[in-house]
Amino acid sequence: MPQPVITVTTDFGSADSYVGQMKGEILRVNPDVRLIDVTHEVPAQDVTRAALILNDIVDSFPPETIHLAVIDPGVGSNRRLVAVEMAGQRFLGPDNGLFGCLAKRHPPTRAVRLDEPRFWRQHPAGLSPSSTFHGRDILAPVAGHISRGIDLRQLGPALGDSLLPTRLPEPQVASGRIVGEVLWIDTFGNLITNIDGSLLTSIAARAVIEVVGQRIVGLAKFYAEQPPGALLALIGSHGLLEISVCCGSAAERFHARPGDRVTITNF
Amino acid sequence: MPQPVITVTTDFGSADSYVGQMKGEILRVNPDVRLIDVTHEVPAQDVTRAALILNDIVDSFPPETIHLAVIDPGVGSNRRLVAVEMAGQRFLGPDNGLFGCLAKRHPPTRAVRLDEPRFWRQHPAGLSPSSTFHGRDILAPVAGHISRGIDLRQLGPALGDSLLPTRLPEPQVASGRIVGEVLWIDTFGNLITNIDGSLLTSIAARAVIEVVGQRIVGLAKFYAEQPPGALLALIGSHGLLEISVCCGSAAERFHARPGDRVTITNF
Amino acid sequence: MPQPVITVTTDFGSADSYVGQMKGEILRVNPDVRLIDVTHEVPAQDVTRAALILNDIVDSFPPETIHLAVIDPGVGSNRRLVAVEMAGQRFLGPDNGLFGCLAKRHPPTRAVRLDEPRFWRQHPAGLSPSSTFHGRDILAPVAGHISRGIDLRQLGPALGDSLLPTRLPEPQVASGRIVGEVLWIDTFGNLITNIDGSLLTSIAARAVIEVVGQRIVGLAKFYAEQPPGALLALIGSHGLLEISVCCGSAAERFHARPGDRVTITNF
Repeated sequence: MPQPVITVTTDFGSADSYVGQMKGEILRVNPDVRLIDVTHEVPAQDVTRAALILNDIVDSFPPETIHLAVIDPGVGSNRRLVAVEMAGQRFLGPDNGLFGCLAKRHPPTRAVRLDEPRFWRQHPAGLSPSSTFHGRDILAPVAGHISRGIDLRQLGPALGDSLLPTRLPEPQVASGRIVGEVLWIDTFGNLITNIDGSLLTSIAARAVIEVVGQRIVGLAKFYAEQPPGALLALIGSHGLLEISVCCGSAAERFHARPGDRVTITNF
Repeated sequence: MPQPVITVTTDFGSADSYVGQMKGEILRVNPDVRLIDVTHEVPAQDVTRAALILNDIVDSFPPETIHLAVIDPGVGSNRRLVAVEMAGQRFLGPDNGLFGCLAKRHPPTRAVRLDEPRFWRQHPAGLSPSSTFHGRDILAPVAGHISRGIDLRQLGPALGDSLLPTRLPEPQVASGRIVGEVLWIDTFGNLITNIDGSLLTSIAARAVIEVVGQRIVGLAKFYAEQPPGALLALIGSHGLLEISVCCGSAAERFHARPGDRVTITNF
Repeated sequence: MPQPVITVTTDFGSADSYVGQMKGEILRVNPDVRLIDVTHEVPAQDVTRAALILNDIVDSFPPETIHLAVIDPGVGSNRRLVAVEMAGQRFLGPDNGLFGCLAKRHPPTRAVRLDEPRFWRQHPAGLSPSSTFHGRDILAPVAGHISRGIDLRQLGPALGDSLLPTRLPEPQVASGRIVGEVLWIDTFGNLITNIDGSLLTSIAARAVIEVVGQRIVGLAKFYAEQPPGALLALIGSHGLLEISVCCGSAAERFHARPGDRVTITNF
């Protein structure tokens, strides 16, 4: 039997002890899991960015994978902690929009509220869990218990209503014109937009893309199609329109930022 | 039998080959261990910061865990490398203050000096280990051997004296007044102070906290208790007084730095 | 049987979903592997830096280790993807200079071109792999298959010619004088040069090193040999001449950069 896989996605950064504490709590419940860091560099409190990352990775992981996501600005308040089964995998985290993006594509087959303290970190002498670190005190141990085979239904009552949607700007599609925006900038300085590749497949060659004061005609197939330094647009591995500079950073060169407008015409 | 756990904490950063080399050396001795990165972003040579991180994580890890900590500005000099048993777990690293903080809370049940070259990296043709990278050449292989069941007493002679204390500024507590300081700034821009929460529990509501030219009255229970942007103080997950801006960075907003004074009055 | 080890080295950074997607694809092919992050902080498209990192780590890993390296500015173009056996270990990545450095020291005992789509990521309904992310679509699944025991010869035809060499500036060695340069700056601000330690062993005490407008006489044995703040030169753990400031950053203090000239005389 291969070890169960638990992935971890947070906005904790890598410099503090927070991620280490969570991993330890998982291992205390189940020493036989495979822990996979997805990223701890989600910008602080950026629930939407994390929702997109979860959406990106789900298709690459094996069935039954457990994904722990802790981007939790509301920790200690009355926001809900949930466990959700989607796409044959399990997701754990606060219900604050983290899972809305995925749920749209892979409707939940089960969703429960984490209400059963017996699966939480055991505190000395009747102390309750901290009100500042539920990732360590609730989510990590619950992930450990799921990896040992505990059924989601034992963790708490069914949600009863829908998961919170992810706040995601939708592109405006009108006759002959799409107006979208830059969602985020990746490590390479590529501008990832909110314009789905499927909107563009039929018009790849003719599309005129305007962004950061620049004009690009047609879509490339890969980054190195143009000479180094050239600006190009393509449908990237996220399935979204990307703006890229071959062997360079489009973001740096054109001072681009999330939220910058992207317009597509001529189709 | 679950795989033994070895955690790794360094100031090596994540861009160089140093961490990879250490992990390889561990796996050459014992291919059946679970390697857990705690952090490699300890500020260069900041032994005190690493001592606090080890202190933070120990309560979250299972018994028998092996913690490898390499913050070692004195590498090659006559500082000692040690293996220490504390809190039912094992710690490996230079005796330069790294373990003082923990030893105060969990007195060592065994401590030895790593003096037995047969447990070190084997070098070709009688070459001795490098004088610049004992993490790779001594500590990593020794961690591997401990994970295979080697008793600490085989690794070298008992220390004979105490571990070096951690250099940690203590708060001054006088009648009706505590004067402490900011120890470090976490990923979220929270100011973590050297004032233990236990000093404040009885006076939570009335305490007046002065820091970075600001004045806060009373302690919050969680970050989102106040509206976004509000400054607040609470006892955080480290058990220490923290200064925080809800959904923002207290450090950026008030240009705070480690060493900044924190005063508490009115109790 | 210990789990097979797959290391991962990329220029993807740690903030995006790219590394997570690759790890997922490996686990989908073989859930029973040990994944080891070497680094994801290779500067974007810096094939030479990655070649040096692979060269650094190879001696620390156990036989049969699989090393996956994705620094691939030419993704989608006609550059080759290869699997190479060197030093009793296996290396996977684009043939763009990544493996040239290693191949010089450990001549390949086998090298094949990854031409067999049946070992690639399975795409729905006859879709071909993306042209922008072969790390996820080809290299990760192939690494998974190798870890399950697939022979390199099944992955595609033998290369037939040599691996591309790594572009590495060679030091000029003339009578009584070596002129080299700074290759990279490590986490501690040490300047790692392209001057091999073996060139200097016989003249350690007398060598005069000129770099960043400074002059150093003789080689130190370890960093803490000099008082804090002192500038020194030594043969570091890479086997290369390094310039270092004890307990400080030589790079910051002298505004040093990769490419800076290093001259050695008087021997």
